[in-house]
Amino acid sequence: MARIYNFSPGPSVLPAPVLEKAREDLRGWRSTGITVMEMSHRGKDFIGIAEKATADLRELLEIPQNYKVLFLAGGASAQFAAVPLNLLRGKTKVSYVSTGYWSEKAIAEARLFGEVQVSASGKESNFTTIPPRPQWNVDPDAAYLHYTANETIGGVEFQAAPEADGLPLVADMSSNILSRPVEVGRFGLIYASAQKNIGLPGLAVVIVREDLIGQALPGTPSTFDYRRQAAEGSMVNTPPTYSWYVAGLMVEWLKEQGGLKAIEARNIRKAEKLYAAIDALPFYSNPVDPAVRSRMNVPFHLADAALETPFLAEAKEAGLAYLEGHRSVGGLRASIYNAMPEEGVDALISFMREFERKRG
Amino acid sequence: MARIYNFSPGPSVLPAPVLEKAREDLRGWRSTGITVMEMSHRGKDFIGIAEKATADLRELLEIPQNYKVLFLAGGASAQFAAVPLNLLRGKTKVSYVSTGYWSEKAIAEARLFGEVQVSASGKESNFTTIPPRPQWNVDPDAAYLHYTANETIGGVEFQAAPEADGLPLVADMSSNILSRPVEVGRFGLIYASAQKNIGLPGLAVVIVREDLIGQALPGTPSTFDYRRQAAEGSMVNTPPTYSWYVAGLMVEWLKEQGGLKAIEARNIRKAEKLYAAIDALPFYSNPVDPAVRSRMNVPFHLADAALETPFLAEAKEAGLAYLEGHRSVGGLRASIYNAMPEEGVDALISFMREFERKRG
Repeated sequence: MARIYNFSPGPSVLPAPVLEKAREDLRGWRSTGITVMEMSHRGKDFIGIAEKATADLRELLEIPQNYKVLFLAGGASAQFAAVPLNLLRGKTKVSYVSTGYWSEKAIAEARLFGEVQVSASGKESNFTTIPPRPQWNVDPDAAYLHYTANETIGGVEFQAAPEADGLPLVADMSSNILSRPVEVGRFGLIYASAQKNIGLPGLAVVIVREDLIGQALPGTPSTFDYRRQAAEGSMVNTPPTYSWYVAGLMVEWLKEQGGLKAIEARNIRKAEKLYAAIDALPFYSNPVDPAVRSRMNVPFHLADAALETPFLAEAKEAGLAYLEGHRSVGGLRASIYNAMPEEGVDALISFMREFERKRG
Repeated sequence: MARIYNFSPGPSVLPAPVLEKAREDLRGWRSTGITVMEMSHRGKDFIGIAEKATADLRELLEIPQNYKVLFLAGGASAQFAAVPLNLLRGKTKVSYVSTGYWSEKAIAEARLFGEVQVSASGKESNFTTIPPRPQWNVDPDAAYLHYTANETIGGVEFQAAPEADGLPLVADMSSNILSRPVEVGRFGLIYASAQKNIGLPGLAVVIVREDLIGQALPGTPSTFDYRRQAAEGSMVNTPPTYSWYVAGLMVEWLKEQGGLKAIEARNIRKAEKLYAAIDALPFYSNPVDPAVRSRMNVPFHLADAALETPFLAEAKEAGLAYLEGHRSVGGLRASIYNAMPEEGVDALISFMREFERKRG
């Protein structure tokens, strides 16, 4: 069947070679006579798959040796709870920066476990900007400073990790991990759900500096306990093996693309040309401060909102699908993760110009 | 490649037609132009897949209308925490029956959240029997009575749900759900990880009577909150969509097999002939009280333990794999879930007889 361009925010498009490999492996994995779906997580075949995925991820992100890498069931929402449960470490307060919908979710969940200081908020600008770092008020007694590296819905992205004033810096990188190089050593903890740049939903990757673990709050569910998961190779419970395998295919593909610098260059080209197309015509608009526009999620509006429905219908006809904005904000949105080919962005831009010509 | 017979305890063998359908769908799902792996959980295509899986499961298990069915990230180990977090409902005590390794795990986790009364334990018999129901001591003030319907490691299975003395009855059915009919109306809650009879790991199915939810303990992670998950169709967070889809293929396949009575008849035949083969030769032994032997997991020993290594090696040569016992107990084990064809059991029995003839 003809493949379309899938601009869904997650679960989202996967690279064609990854799908092809997964399909081929469903005939049976190597000479085992079974598929990866049927492998015991304790058997040497799966252990090999898991270790290679972990090693490739370490290599791509240049993760220092004093960081643990965990593959855990559930996505970022589960980590919204796991992070304070593990990282409060006897303190009572945590600091969060709010840059939109997902920051607010993380804050609400953290409030179940401790006092949350909101160090800065983009709310006044309706989350179209990020308050400059010098204006942040970070409590030195907080257990950590948390921010959302990319807001999938609002389309706001940090272009560099903020200064943490000596606190452990914690980042939700669900929607931009592996899209650019990151200096992991600046972080206490990085977490990301997998369904954008790492494959299938139901899996989160957690990268945590080892001195921060081991003091989980009483009442922390065992499967959420980073120390136990680190000690048992993410196998306190049966891990989501198939999603881990797909994560391995994703990082392998990324290495074949030339690694993070190469994928970043492509992501910059894709984003720049799409924003340029939006800015060039008053028919389209993106409200975000250009300095913090997301390379991954590009929300936009039509000057005449009544044209959104025909826009979506005609785009779908043209093989450009899932361009609806999030139900909380409306409008339109193009998610252009690593796996979205540059041709997909070019096709969207051509369609947008043509639609404006006919309807503008 | 030639498929082997995979006796792994979980993740475990899947039906060949399910694998074939999954493989075919990786070309693209129907006319969407994308695969199920790439579908937004909020889109109508995935919602259709999820609703059909849920409806098929309801039909197979004849789940009454006053029960919610949830598809949650994580497996049974996550539910070991979620069950007391949701079902304590202002009480302080819970009652658990211990029948082996997995009961003990569930008990240890429940102790993080409340006082656990062990109503009965098979420990004195080294977990080869289940204490008769009249000997159980069930506290009438307990929030619920929990038991493990099938012990995957010890090979002990309840042949009927126990009387609960008016308490909500809670069962971990991870390794025998969908292997036989169950009278759901007798239970307060049934949970099961998916990686035996429902497909891929990283997913748990929870079936809960609706009057029991809505009183989760303070500090319950949102993704563990049954009320919220029930209200939002298991989408408080992005669910493990691909595992949910495979669960749908599994229940569809089960319906094609004739439903639970038909699969039960096949499971009885498979188990009876395998136990008969073990009992017929002093060379093999199974320690479990015949009244509570598991139809799903058949542990066995060789009279001469030194022969286990050659047994495993020669079995593998003969296309019979993953027969190692659990690392906590050693010995051998054949897991014969729904997806293990009767021919696989026949092949194992032939091999066992032949091995005994040569080495006995």
